[in-house]
Amino acid sequence: MADCILALDFGGTKLSAAVLPVSELAAGQPAWLAHERLFSPKDGNAQFDIETMIALGKRLLAGKRPLAVGVSFGGPVDYQSGIVRLSHHVPGWENVPLQKLLAAEFSAPVRVDNDANVAALGEWRFGAGSGFDSLFYVTVSTGVGGGWVLNGRCWRGHEGMAGEIGHTVVEPDGPLCLCGKQGCVERLASGPYMAHDFMALSGDLDAGITGKEVAELAARGDEVAQTVLLRGARALGVGLGNTANLINPQRFILGGGVTKSGELWWQAVRQSAEQVALPEIHFEIVPAVFADDAPLWGAVALVAGMNYEL
Amino acid sequence: MADCILALDFGGTKLSAAVLPVSELAAGQPAWLAHERLFSPKDGNAQFDIETMIALGKRLLAGKRPLAVGVSFGGPVDYQSGIVRLSHHVPGWENVPLQKLLAAEFSAPVRVDNDANVAALGEWRFGAGSGFDSLFYVTVSTGVGGGWVLNGRCWRGHEGMAGEIGHTVVEPDGPLCLCGKQGCVERLASGPYMAHDFMALSGDLDAGITGKEVAELAARGDEVAQTVLLRGARALGVGLGNTANLINPQRFILGGGVTKSGELWWQAVRQSAEQVALPEIHFEIVPAVFADDAPLWGAVALVAGMNYEL
Repeated sequence: MADCILALDFGGTKLSAAVLPVSELAAGQPAWLAHERLFSPKDGNAQFDIETMIALGKRLLAGKRPLAVGVSFGGPVDYQSGIVRLSHHVPGWENVPLQKLLAAEFSAPVRVDNDANVAALGEWRFGAGSGFDSLFYVTVSTGVGGGWVLNGRCWRGHEGMAGEIGHTVVEPDGPLCLCGKQGCVERLASGPYMAHDFMALSGDLDAGITGKEVAELAARGDEVAQTVLLRGARALGVGLGNTANLINPQRFILGGGVTKSGELWWQAVRQSAEQVALPEIHFEIVPAVFADDAPLWGAVALVAGMNYEL
Repeated sequence: MADCILALDFGGTKLSAAVLPVSELAAGQPAWLAHERLFSPKDGNAQFDIETMIALGKRLLAGKRPLAVGVSFGGPVDYQSGIVRLSHHVPGWENVPLQKLLAAEFSAPVRVDNDANVAALGEWRFGAGSGFDSLFYVTVSTGVGGGWVLNGRCWRGHEGMAGEIGHTVVEPDGPLCLCGKQGCVERLASGPYMAHDFMALSGDLDAGITGKEVAELAARGDEVAQTVLLRGARALGVGLGNTANLINPQRFILGGGVTKSGELWWQAVRQSAEQVALPEIHFEIVPAVFADDAPLWGAVALVAGMNYEL
């Protein structure tokens, strides 16, 4: 086996690993040498996830030592130290020194970052941001969050908290968000909140509708669903337009389930962002290239080209 | 005369120049060797401003060739080429190659940038941002705009338009701004708009009140003035809180006339920003150190430490 990079993705419900030969980094469409995804058990914990991931990585590597290990984690991470702060989905992740632990297991340098930053890097290196120097990647899913690439480098903020577009306020008198504020982008544009708003407007909060179903109903002409979907899209657009005025990046790249809501949704997002941005400010809003594999490609981008000395 | 830097400030109504010996750059409180400010005539133009500034600079230099010339311009500038795009105050500034023109006159390397970026650099190098790696400088005056320092470098955006916090929307159903949008920060928080809103609420749009007088009336307990001032302060605070969530900088530095509005205003700005920022996100909001001389100190910062070869 040639020199390779190991990519690991600790998602909330899935564990994924893949191996990329470094020779593939120069390819137009790099291809994994090995790739596997497991679903975490519902009663899992950090210890189980770590052990399973180490076993999975070693199996894919088949005895070879990787040049480097890139890791995406679905929760807050201190990038400098490689320590996971916590997981909102899996217990036991409080202050786990994941970088140190994996470096010892794989005898290789390791970098760990949160999934939004990693996905931004992945799209920048291999996907919809390739060739662009400044971009903001936003995932619109159960939550709304993002990651920055500025001057060809990840911008994490002084506490590693940059990118929280989901909790920018766009309607100060809008509905209450779980974060305690009113009219956050996430409160209006995320899948679960759109589903909630649809059910509330329909008068049945127990209807068990999902965000995806709201988009499907809207596409079939349901007026309540369209109202909710477009309000969410416009709120996101205001957030993106505000961000364009503040930072003037070249591209916005949108990923996550809600971005599959169809042309109606995309039009409303783009129109609203363009209305809010000053006329001298230009940008494109494009879909992410990667879906489920975004964190793995981003994990590769996190370590590609680094100094591979341990 | 020792080796020195020439700093020039083309304001909308003033022309300022100063000379700093480079030996002063290492001083705790650097002091100008020479400094002068002129008021532009009301019927002035670009040609007159340029000729006057060249004469002023040469007089302050007293025959000496400067190591470099830093220039602040009160309007949009293409930093890479040093070409002024236009002035909103003085005619004749369309596409003036100011950098090239001054480099020929002073036989020295020249850098030109807009006043918000320059002031941000000045505060970062010599003022309230000294020792901080990431900051956003905001001027709250007749307009509201800002400049970024990220990773110890000015972040200008891909078209040089970053920092336009004044045109981020914080009240989508709010009053109409000159830019065509509703509820921009500038529409609510700038001096002239606060004066306008006070006069409108008082039922006399011809009262000739200024933003400064609104602040004075508020300090003396006038309820209408307090309402207008606090609404502006809160709108700015929402803009700052949103910015904190997006970029997570260490400091916000506020300059400009409106920041002299007293403790009531500062409290409302800080409180509103903290309410909008996520609890994990921390920052300080502090007053700028420099007032009228901010662009001159920033002009020095723009060229200090650069390669002084022409």
